[in-house]
Amino acid sequence: MSLARFSFNQATAQRWPLPEVVAGCVAAGVPGIGLWREPVAEYGLARSAKLVRDAGLAVTSLCRGGFFSADDWRAENLRAIEEAAALGAPELVLVSGGLPAGSRDVDGARRRVADAIGELAPHAEAAGVRLAIEPLHPMFASDRCVITTLGQALDVAERFDPAVVGVVVDAYHVWWDDTVYAQIARAAARIAAFQVCDWVTPLPEGVLLGRALPGDGCIELRRLREAVDAAGYVGPIEVEVFSAEVWARPGAEVLDAAIAGYLRHVA
Amino acid sequence: MSLARFSFNQATAQRWPLPEVVAGCVAAGVPGIGLWREPVAEYGLARSAKLVRDAGLAVTSLCRGGFFSADDWRAENLRAIEEAAALGAPELVLVSGGLPAGSRDVDGARRRVADAIGELAPHAEAAGVRLAIEPLHPMFASDRCVITTLGQALDVAERFDPAVVGVVVDAYHVWWDDTVYAQIARAAARIAAFQVCDWVTPLPEGVLLGRALPGDGCIELRRLREAVDAAGYVGPIEVEVFSAEVWARPGAEVLDAAIAGYLRHVA
Repeated sequence: MSLARFSFNQATAQRWPLPEVVAGCVAAGVPGIGLWREPVAEYGLARSAKLVRDAGLAVTSLCRGGFFSADDWRAENLRAIEEAAALGAPELVLVSGGLPAGSRDVDGARRRVADAIGELAPHAEAAGVRLAIEPLHPMFASDRCVITTLGQALDVAERFDPAVVGVVVDAYHVWWDDTVYAQIARAAARIAAFQVCDWVTPLPEGVLLGRALPGDGCIELRRLREAVDAAGYVGPIEVEVFSAEVWARPGAEVLDAAIAGYLRHVA
Repeated sequence: MSLARFSFNQATAQRWPLPEVVAGCVAAGVPGIGLWREPVAEYGLARSAKLVRDAGLAVTSLCRGGFFSADDWRAENLRAIEEAAALGAPELVLVSGGLPAGSRDVDGARRRVADAIGELAPHAEAAGVRLAIEPLHPMFASDRCVITTLGQALDVAERFDPAVVGVVVDAYHVWWDDTVYAQIARAAARIAAFQVCDWVTPLPEGVLLGRALPGDGCIELRRLREAVDAAGYVGPIEVEVFSAEVWARPGAEVLDAAIAGYLRHVA
């Protein structure tokens, strides 16, 4: 087993400044990094791109576009596509957004997601960036993402060229679904990214920061990795953990733990 | 609109003693009540049955059997079937249970659910009690219920006589599912119970007590009610809310609010 496909999503060590994350990845022999727009903007887009490129790291994805319920979704997503291109990120992760405030119209919100992706697709194609629709766990359906299953993400993605619109398989969001292995097989060349972390309970208030490092929970991570491989996916595998407990630890220690969990439970 | 189909699940006013719940329902013109095993045992099974019967209330369901990951699941569920029969509850709600401690084998846990229901079905049939498989929201998949969608519940239920094994449609657990209306149509005569409350965020720590009274959240409750009706369901509609905030209010006030929310957003 090697780190050839391993990518460290920077959100896993949220308080680690970008230059230190990059240096840490290089020191650990990590070949790829997943970036987020906010810390990239803070460090500077061109400066971030140069930092990562000079270090020889591949940018495996940029998080994130989407949130199509926001008024400024179009301008914001066009900017995100440009940023992904500037960083050399082949994939822009899209989290669709939830219901508009006070709305109960989940069908309407879902239609808007498909329409918005239709509007963005030509721009993404022109920029050489693939739009990667990420289904989030259904506990985020109302406030973050009306796309709740891999099957539903594929229903949208399949309207477009697979080179332009794909899907994200994030173990945390899909593990509970009894149809997930069938949907991974269906996804095939649509799989634009594969992300891993682990599921633990009890969930904390707000549920966003309830994730664990690979191996610390109940998800069959290796089985999911084998399934995406069997579907033809040969891309990077990002460890992405949101956790108050993990974030409180030193970045280098978190990277070491992410690598160890990856090698033991995923690779 | 009337209260003819309204049923008050006693968990909605958890701290209201059973005799007061029953008196409150009678005073409010509520025809049905959903009971839970623990408060029934506390008041006494025969005594509870007599109290409710003398008040002229229908017991619309008993919560709950299931938890098939527990060592004593068989004896416990046979007792639950007997209790449902003694109370005159036509339906025993089954919550399947999660993964055994330390296990990642979700397929195995799901097979055990189907096997257990196969073992219980003849006993339920003999007792005149229908087993009602309740899919819970996927955020409970690991620790409470490996059955996470209506489709999955139906895959199990359809192995049995519909008069013996049905499914629960609880709006809170299924609203996020883009296939839910197709699955409700598929369920048809399998719909053993229809429960309503509402979805609000942020979810509290542990997520169990995050529910709201009908109308206070984002679920299209009337649309779901119309869908179960269109599928042929003519049974009771239970309001069932777990909420620290609701539980802190006087029981009579909660019942009034449940009725008002039901009439305005469900009936």
